[in-house]
Amino acid sequence: MTLPIHERPTTALAEAIRSGEITSVGACETYLERIGTFDGDLNAYASVFAESARSAAQRADRALARGETFGSLHGVPIAVKDLVAIAGRPTLAGSRMRTNDPPALHDATALARLRAAGAILLGTLSMDEFAAGLVTEYTHQRPTCNPWARDRVAGGSSGGSAVAVAAGLASATVGSDTNGSIRVPASFCGIVGFKPTYGRIPMTGITPLSWSLDHVGPMTRTVGDAQLLYDVMRDGSAAPDARRRDVRDDLAGIRVGVLPSSALELCSPPVRAAYDEAIEAIAPLVRLLEIDETVLEWSRPASGVVTAAEAATYHFKDLQTRPHQFHAGIRSDLRAAALLPATAYIQAQRVRGEVRDGFARIFQDVDVVFVPTTPDTALKRDDPDGRSRLGHFTQPFSFAGIPAISLPLLLRTGGLPVGLTVAGPAFGDDTVLAVGRALEAIGLVKTLIPDLAVSRSATTTG
Amino acid sequence: MTLPIHERPTTALAEAIRSGEITSVGACETYLERIGTFDGDLNAYASVFAESARSAAQRADRALARGETFGSLHGVPIAVKDLVAIAGRPTLAGSRMRTNDPPALHDATALARLRAAGAILLGTLSMDEFAAGLVTEYTHQRPTCNPWARDRVAGGSSGGSAVAVAAGLASATVGSDTNGSIRVPASFCGIVGFKPTYGRIPMTGITPLSWSLDHVGPMTRTVGDAQLLYDVMRDGSAAPDARRRDVRDDLAGIRVGVLPSSALELCSPPVRAAYDEAIEAIAPLVRLLEIDETVLEWSRPASGVVTAAEAATYHFKDLQTRPHQFHAGIRSDLRAAALLPATAYIQAQRVRGEVRDGFARIFQDVDVVFVPTTPDTALKRDDPDGRSRLGHFTQPFSFAGIPAISLPLLLRTGGLPVGLTVAGPAFGDDTVLAVGRALEAIGLVKTLIPDLAVSRSATTTG
Repeated sequence: MTLPIHERPTTALAEAIRSGEITSVGACETYLERIGTFDGDLNAYASVFAESARSAAQRADRALARGETFGSLHGVPIAVKDLVAIAGRPTLAGSRMRTNDPPALHDATALARLRAAGAILLGTLSMDEFAAGLVTEYTHQRPTCNPWARDRVAGGSSGGSAVAVAAGLASATVGSDTNGSIRVPASFCGIVGFKPTYGRIPMTGITPLSWSLDHVGPMTRTVGDAQLLYDVMRDGSAAPDARRRDVRDDLAGIRVGVLPSSALELCSPPVRAAYDEAIEAIAPLVRLLEIDETVLEWSRPASGVVTAAEAATYHFKDLQTRPHQFHAGIRSDLRAAALLPATAYIQAQRVRGEVRDGFARIFQDVDVVFVPTTPDTALKRDDPDGRSRLGHFTQPFSFAGIPAISLPLLLRTGGLPVGLTVAGPAFGDDTVLAVGRALEAIGLVKTLIPDLAVSRSATTTG
Repeated sequence: MTLPIHERPTTALAEAIRSGEITSVGACETYLERIGTFDGDLNAYASVFAESARSAAQRADRALARGETFGSLHGVPIAVKDLVAIAGRPTLAGSRMRTNDPPALHDATALARLRAAGAILLGTLSMDEFAAGLVTEYTHQRPTCNPWARDRVAGGSSGGSAVAVAAGLASATVGSDTNGSIRVPASFCGIVGFKPTYGRIPMTGITPLSWSLDHVGPMTRTVGDAQLLYDVMRDGSAAPDARRRDVRDDLAGIRVGVLPSSALELCSPPVRAAYDEAIEAIAPLVRLLEIDETVLEWSRPASGVVTAAEAATYHFKDLQTRPHQFHAGIRSDLRAAALLPATAYIQAQRVRGEVRDGFARIFQDVDVVFVPTTPDTALKRDDPDGRSRLGHFTQPFSFAGIPAISLPLLLRTGGLPVGLTVAGPAFGDDTVLAVGRALEAIGLVKTLIPDLAVSRSATTTG
């Protein structure tokens, strides 16, 4: 059985292009056509580069005809979050105030590496303005919809990046993550989102939200795809994984840290049930240990202070000179942040040291930690309910700078997607990815394709 | 010609004790007697541990009689700044609010390493309260006097540590340096003061002033002594000097960065003359290059903001609950600092990145940089003149976290001591020390002994 192009993993699509089964132009046209059909409603894309994508795909196909392969992503159509610098274009970062900025001189390092490996850039993807949100609704553009239910948010701030993968509008995408901006939309949209160890993929050319917390990473259909993009984007000069450990497909011998019941109280029933079922399913395979939840409790408030203060510093001048060009909610948050005392920021950074130490202790006893990615499934649009706790399970890992991947649980009962996060110690990226692949292998995790026509009418009737 | 004990370098004293020429008890009694004679006026010491020092010295002598040597400082009497934790005593840090604190459970790591190498602890040394000054006058204790002129400050905050070495009241001492607190008093008192690369000597057990800027280091009579104490205190697990370069005693081939005239305008005439003469003297030996002074101009204000905000964070609770136990000037500074916005602190830390990058560029072209340690010679007591610019030439190196040593220039014309700072790139500590030794070898640098009787009467008559 051959999957349609847009349902294939990136690894499989890349192989099909290399083998000549599919042309890069053919793959591009598939995605461009789907964008034309579905993205008017979904709003995953901020801009589509149809012509330059077609030209690049033609070059890729001609190169292949000459027997030349650019790299592991030869001819594969991808897209990037709107805050990734693209040579020749201003970097908008979801805002309207940078439209007249000078064009970027260079691609962001992450994008340059993807293009050098042969990837074709389809366009830029919607986001919360300046990445300051977890919903992709804080924007002057039309909000991005969740392809599983149009009256639900996609999650954010890399909402467009998640929707493009979930709806088959790109083979894989790049997002950024400061407090969960890759993992929350991956969870809400039912795809894979990977935030590596802090600094592993260079941030050069990525518009900052909060320097000390910003990460960039892949959003994909499978864990293998995440590994593929990660391997292309990460620093080649970095030492091999200090914390790598061999992971067998049956997970034998792996020590998994899980949450005590008390730490799950703020989860909605479907998330709680899905998490408990997942832990039950792996219980016969691995060694389970309950972890101390203190690191979770401290991370959300402290990470919030660090993010706010750094964002206010970055936007300080614009906040004085052209405040009304910001989205109103973000302007208000930035103004509050500009009033934070330095002592609060420094204290929050001290808490961060404690959180980092807390995780170091946890990872003396376990190889990976499993948590729900979000306390709720995709939230309703234009509804504040649940938003304040959205980052509860994602912020600890970005705050500590340690690798975390959100994986779409294969739910027996259906319903909205639920993400399971697998996190590991600093520089344990490959271990986290290997555990993710094993969870796919045993059938616990799978990216499904939403029925876009059905969910469309669901919105119409709802 | 045999030097009296208190004029010998620590290296020579250690050798004399090892060889049996001098006993540790004899060395201790020499220093204790000098403390009794001179420290009533000088106030270098905060506390003297005569009995425990004598017992430790006896143990050292007995061990030696058995043929046992504890380490490279066997039997050598030293003293430490009042902010170094000593097992069994509260750590006062020059304040009166910690007298009833519980005793420290452990020696600070730096002190533990010195004692393990055989050093004998004579006592604790005076400082500005909580290290928040560069004069050793911001204290509830009597101020510490400069042994070269009692109406002048010793410099600070490690003033007692400098005076004890200069006046021969300890063989060597330990100070701490956040913005120049080792180097300024070393310069004012005419001794050697070394601030290593940030983090090279653990800060465990040292009362913080500003976490991201605090350093600990040796204050000594010679560069060889500084190397000896540094080698004992530094992390043994650290990689060997990444930036080490071979330095010949004639300095052949060394590239020295010097300041353009414009950068010396704020120096007093004696400092300017001494610096110019030193550069002139080495000009035939080395390659001189003028460096870009931008890093100097930015460091003082930005480092001031970082220090103030971190100190206000550390003292936040005491500032609310018992403000009047602080020295009035320090209380006022901390209160102002507690009002600093986080954006200012973060911006200052961003400037720090620029300063670090600026030095990295400078050290592509030169091996070391020579600057005056302070714009003025020792300032008058109780006189604000010159205090605001005191750290101009020291703050850049602590801000960048790179090694810097203040060396006492041998002045042809006499007068108050003038310090020359030799600074190097991060992890170029051994290079900096080697250049310092070469400057001693060619007779440019030498620690002299002040005539304590004469300068005493000078104060009496002035």
